[in-house]
Amino acid sequence: MTHTIRIIGIDPGLRRTGWGVVEITGTALSHCGCGAVTSNADAPLSERLRAIHEGIAKIIADFAPHEAVVEETFVNKDARATLKLGQARGVVMLAPAQAGLPVAEYAPNAVKKAIVGAGHADKAQIHHMVRILLPKARPGTTDAADALALAICHAHHRGAPAKRAVAG
Amino acid sequence: MTHTIRIIGIDPGLRRTGWGVVEITGTALSHCGCGAVTSNADAPLSERLRAIHEGIAKIIADFAPHEAVVEETFVNKDARATLKLGQARGVVMLAPAQAGLPVAEYAPNAVKKAIVGAGHADKAQIHHMVRILLPKARPGTTDAADALALAICHAHHRGAPAKRAVAG
Repeated sequence: MTHTIRIIGIDPGLRRTGWGVVEITGTALSHCGCGAVTSNADAPLSERLRAIHEGIAKIIADFAPHEAVVEETFVNKDARATLKLGQARGVVMLAPAQAGLPVAEYAPNAVKKAIVGAGHADKAQIHHMVRILLPKARPGTTDAADALALAICHAHHRGAPAKRAVAG
Repeated sequence: MTHTIRIIGIDPGLRRTGWGVVEITGTALSHCGCGAVTSNADAPLSERLRAIHEGIAKIIADFAPHEAVVEETFVNKDARATLKLGQARGVVMLAPAQAGLPVAEYAPNAVKKAIVGAGHADKAQIHHMVRILLPKARPGTTDAADALALAICHAHHRGAPAKRAVAG
């Protein structure tokens, strides 16, 4: 008997957080949905964080994934940008944790390697492979495509579903 | 008629988040409670963020403050530490926003200046002044004392309570 595992990939950002949900049954991958949650740049920071958290929590309630995966943020030289991203990442990781989901993390290069086979693939190559692997997906934004790539990466890396105890 | 305003100050940290609640009636300040919410360093990051958020949300439900204030994190050179702090700060700011509270932010130097009168006061001076201003407070940790200092700072800076429409 083959279990189906639903995975949500999330690419956090204060302005725009991408999300993508895929299902894997045995080795067959399929697309469930994708999109982006945005926040109003003119709103106070606490309000923006609330909007992002609420948006992702709603997607999780709607799609009921079994596992979540979040991009391991590239730590760059701009401390102010890192702090902003960290704040968005905090509320983004909170939502699946509150729903009782395990939350995996992958570095951007690991995602590229899983999807394209090379750690330094560019965005266009990633999005091309996402379209090939999930022909029914229509990611309208880069963030949604990146989130789908994350979910695909986790689907391939998490190990055979049969190895895990999964309800249903 | 003089309104009473209850303020929660929060000093975010992934390992330990300090909190302190004060009340101001006219110019009279009083202590309501203080403490720290901790997370298990061995738990996954998403679980730690959940614990911090849940702890602060519970304090807000218990004390029903009208306003919140969070330290504006010092952006240092260590990007990895900044990211960690950002994540904790994200879930800490989320809790009051979800409760409908306005969330103010102050830089550490503004807090020092408000409490001690000098922007470069050391921790010991801050804690000494917190003890004088709130003789009934018994902050058991540095984080709790810092959170009370934040709440006092906001009590002094937020303007006369009469200027705001406050329920009750």
